[in-house]
Amino acid sequence: MSGRFITFEGGEGTGKSTQVKLLAEYLKANGIDVVLTKEPGGTPIGQELRAMLCTGDKDKFDAVAEALLYYADRRIHMQQKVLPALAKGSWVISDRFADSTMAYQYYGYNKRVPKQMLEELYKMTVGDFYPDLTVILDIDPEIGLARSIAQNSTYVVQETRHESREMEFHHNLRAGFLEIAKTADRYAVIDANKTIESLHDEIVKLVRERLL
Amino acid sequence: MSGRFITFEGGEGTGKSTQVKLLAEYLKANGIDVVLTKEPGGTPIGQELRAMLCTGDKDKFDAVAEALLYYADRRIHMQQKVLPALAKGSWVISDRFADSTMAYQYYGYNKRVPKQMLEELYKMTVGDFYPDLTVILDIDPEIGLARSIAQNSTYVVQETRHESREMEFHHNLRAGFLEIAKTADRYAVIDANKTIESLHDEIVKLVRERLL
Repeated sequence: MSGRFITFEGGEGTGKSTQVKLLAEYLKANGIDVVLTKEPGGTPIGQELRAMLCTGDKDKFDAVAEALLYYADRRIHMQQKVLPALAKGSWVISDRFADSTMAYQYYGYNKRVPKQMLEELYKMTVGDFYPDLTVILDIDPEIGLARSIAQNSTYVVQETRHESREMEFHHNLRAGFLEIAKTADRYAVIDANKTIESLHDEIVKLVRERLL
Repeated sequence: MSGRFITFEGGEGTGKSTQVKLLAEYLKANGIDVVLTKEPGGTPIGQELRAMLCTGDKDKFDAVAEALLYYADRRIHMQQKVLPALAKGSWVISDRFADSTMAYQYYGYNKRVPKQMLEELYKMTVGDFYPDLTVILDIDPEIGLARSIAQNSTYVVQETRHESREMEFHHNLRAGFLEIAKTADRYAVIDANKTIESLHDEIVKLVRERLL
């Protein structure tokens, strides 16, 4: 029996990390075996790649190099963690997946990287396999970034490489996620500008309707 | 004025690192500005990727993940070091380049990764640009591996991830480089089973004939 694969997407400070934890707790309380994971950094090698990708100067490498590194992390993550867990019947919830690469490296950079390149990288790395449900948390980037920067200030390692990009990047990113959401039925866009509790309730309702 | 781009390729222990240094010294003595570099690890971020790729367990990730990581290193190397140096008119000599990825990840693993995937990665990353000369140093893998392992034993960090693969891998690799050499005029295969001095003399003769 194969489990279900749920991915959460969205810009900076949309509340993804909090919501994936709450959903995992809800599903576990309902007797489902859940693996909670993230990209980049869902594996030990992925953690090294995450440090490379999410810290330091925003221009330390270009969008093509970024896409290759995110897909390397994704390949290792799929092979070593996601696919084995699904094969055992567990549900896997991932804080970000491939739609983030399309949103950041294609839309965010205003289409400087060919879309076809990212689609080819997906085929090479993941193949003909997609999440069962992708929740896109949508928020005004001005609100999201303020949240994200406040939260980062409490961390030892400052993961602010993407936060440091100009506002135009973040507006492109938001518009990109909304474009992506139109391309398949597996997407659901949720307004993230509400309390943690009411956002969680809405996500639970969605998961129950779509997957339970 | 654009410089020339020379790459050295071959299996483990063929003497590439020694020969690139000797060729760089020879060209400098002849008044040419030379940038000596390597893949993986020609840049600071590349050094982090090199540690990931060349140390540790041989099965820590698969050939597809390897190809993505080698191409990420290559993209950063091209953008930050190789292309700027060539644009200034310097000659660039690289200890390994894209032919190594084709030889190791396609031929070495007995064609488990599609060749087309590696060709697409080249196009995405390097585009329509090729070395002016590629020197393939050829040696019986039994001799090369013994050399490489002896040399590694003198290093603090043991870069033996690829050396630890079975002999079949290394025989596939050698055959792969010889196949690759047939595909374009820029290749020259040189028997590396000779003294450092006579190998250097042969390489100098080749470079003079082809590029000077």
